[in-house]
Amino acid sequence: MENERYRRGFHKFMEYTTVTQDERDSGKVADPLEDIAPDLRRFIIEFAYGDIYSRPGLDNKSRALITISSLVTQGTERQIEVHINRGLTAGLTPTEVVESIMQLVPYTGFPRVQNALIIAKKVFMQHNISKD
Amino acid sequence: MENERYRRGFHKFMEYTTVTQDERDSGKVADPLEDIAPDLRRFIIEFAYGDIYSRPGLDNKSRALITISSLVTQGTERQIEVHINRGLTAGLTPTEVVESIMQLVPYTGFPRVQNALIIAKKVFMQHNISKD
Amino acid sequence: MENERYRRGFHKFMEYTTVTQDERDSGKVADPLEDIAPDLRRFIIEFAYGDIYSRPGLDNKSRALITISSLVTQGTERQIEVHINRGLTAGLTPTEVVESIMQLVPYTGFPRVQNALIIAKKVFMQHNISKD
Amino acid sequence: MENERYRRGFHKFMEYTTVTQDERDSGKVADPLEDIAPDLRRFIIEFAYGDIYSRPGLDNKSRALITISSLVTQGTERQIEVHINRGLTAGLTPTEVVESIMQLVPYTGFPRVQNALIIAKKVFMQHNISKD
Amino acid sequence: MENERYRRGFHKFMEYTTVTQDERDSGKVADPLEDIAPDLRRFIIEFAYGDIYSRPGLDNKSRALITISSLVTQGTERQIEVHINRGLTAGLTPTEVVESIMQLVPYTGFPRVQNALIIAKKVFMQHNISKD
Amino acid sequence: MENERYRRGFHKFMEYTTVTQDERDSGKVADPLEDIAPDLRRFIIEFAYGDIYSRPGLDNKSRALITISSLVTQGTERQIEVHINRGLTAGLTPTEVVESIMQLVPYTGFPRVQNALIIAKKVFMQHNISKD
Repeated sequence: MENERYRRGFHKFMEYTTVTQDERDSGKVADPLEDIAPDLRRFIIEFAYGDIYSRPGLDNKSRALITISSLVTQGTERQIEVHINRGLTAGLTPTEVVESIMQLVPYTGFPRVQNALIIAKKVFMQHNISKD
Repeated sequence: MENERYRRGFHKFMEYTTVTQDERDSGKVADPLEDIAPDLRRFIIEFAYGDIYSRPGLDNKSRALITISSLVTQGTERQIEVHINRGLTAGLTPTEVVESIMQLVPYTGFPRVQNALIIAKKVFMQHNISKD
Repeated sequence: MENERYRRGFHKFMEYTTVTQDERDSGKVADPLEDIAPDLRRFIIEFAYGDIYSRPGLDNKSRALITISSLVTQGTERQIEVHINRGLTAGLTPTEVVESIMQLVPYTGFPRVQNALIIAKKVFMQHNISKD
Repeated sequence: MENERYRRGFHKFMEYTTVTQDERDSGKVADPLEDIAPDLRRFIIEFAYGDIYSRPGLDNKSRALITISSLVTQGTERQIEVHINRGLTAGLTPTEVVESIMQLVPYTGFPRVQNALIIAKKVFMQHNISKD
Repeated sequence: MENERYRRGFHKFMEYTTVTQDERDSGKVADPLEDIAPDLRRFIIEFAYGDIYSRPGLDNKSRALITISSLVTQGTERQIEVHINRGLTAGLTPTEVVESIMQLVPYTGFPRVQNALIIAKKVFMQHNISKD
Repeated sequence: MENERYRRGFHKFMEYTTVTQDERDSGKVADPLEDIAPDLRRFIIEFAYGDIYSRPGLDNKSRALITISSLVTQGTERQIEVHINRGLTAGLTPTEVVESIMQLVPYTGFPRVQNALIIAKKVFMQHNISKD
């Protein structure tokens, strides 16, 4: 499993997430789906982070903004929470997170934006950070 | 109609679009829906550009990336074309446009990405630009 | 095929569409999918019009508004055109059609609304009607 | 903040919601997002209620039906609950709420309808009303 | 209510669900929406199961796979759970359920797939079954 | 580029598409996006066909049905056409294609189904095949 794409992906993944020393050493992250779909996590590391996120041409913060925008548009709330966290780790400020969601009002309408901001607020509180 | 929000919006709108001298002078852009829904264009200028795009906290290029990402996720092809054009005017390079669409493969799947890249290619050809 | 649900549905269907004398007499409408999926049109008449549209509790105009709203939200353009026509036949005025689409700006954003209004304009022109 | 659009919007908003005397006096409603995105509530009042809901051409009940239809189609459950409440305040009967959701079976399929009716039932129980 | 379509639908429905002896005898299943929308359950039995699922040309397992695929794509989580259960009753193995969801990664992206697999895992645990 | 995943993917891809002798020899298919996004086609071969379609646990026909179901639900018409063709190549009969789309009426409503059947009819005519 420890191929070049996986290594590149895991390295990139760590720029978006805070992993434990154990996860860093093993190159594996805890995966609640390991028993029924062990390949899913591997595909996320290899394909999403190894093939896509590792491409040149856009910095990490831009990729985080684009991802959050797509997830807010879809309304996939679990992943909105995960990727607001990843965006903050990758260097987005809370204001940039809020503004990127507010930017979507003309394109998704208020409901998707409102639901995403409720999640953003929860994430900010977990990190004990305020918006400015 | 020429209120402060409209003026601010139209000024911001011109940072994303190339308007004619006549449009610039009149503060109005040609609107195919003027006869049945004349307020829609005004709301886009006042609300989308005057209230939302004019907010601090994100630069024009980031707002263009976020918008394109949402439109690709929705699959609204007419607007994908319009906003790739606006993104290029606002300073995105063709590579940044392509990369922002490629970044969505893990989040929307291949079909939405493929359809958006076909539109990007058409826009690039209209502008006689190549990707690099 | 000429069961009670079909008859009730076809009667209701005629309140939303202008059928030819031949269609009225035969109880059948021209169906481009007749060769590969002949049951689809029957299900639309029996189930959509016979079971759902025929229910008490909402008048035809309200059902047309609700249907258009759902189709605009989905962005299914072929059906938006069909159901703007049906709404007009059922008694909606052009202004009510436009307003029902404009009402969706805060809930779907501008792109879906813009695309639907372009279709509305086309339908109005086909009928040679102006908005007021 | 107390501009003409806001006042018009807040006046319209009160036709859809039961506000406290304090909220009525202050022209402000409790807003859980006030700390991270204070402008969102203002935009909802000014733009959604002041610019859109206040337009002539459709009555409050029709606007409520259209809004509920779009939210059911999107599956944004938090807002379905909010807008069923607003629709009831604006004069919709429980039967009209149920019928407007049932009308969507042919256009969204059963799952969105079923999920919306579960929410409608919950709202009716909170208000201690039965369907007829 | 006990018409031919209902009987055919209820018979088909029992191939996808485990009903109690009482439900089998009465031809009715417990319906939480019975008080506000008693026709919805009837329409599901008559139309979905009586008219659609009962058609020739595809076996029960294929219809279950197609249904799960559509629900995962929509992200309607309550129904994903229901139809994974129905698929298992209709003869799908846990591996087939997992594989049909994994097959969607290239078409919906990772978030919808991840959310559906979390539900699949929960269903498997309720039935005390492991994937192989 | 000619890695193991690509080879496996291309081999699988040929089970779903009719490639020219030249494409078969070169291991490359004509790609209209080659100039702006040359990696997209490679990712489709490597990841979609090499990693996902090549998995055990479901046969080619089931994977085609699942894919068509997701695309119909999304309404991505270009890909519906492509994958009806691929499904036929992989062994689906026209009746199975039609039935898999009809199965979606209760889950997506009539509009998505109607639009997909219009595409199916077009594909069948291109291949000069009738439904039975």
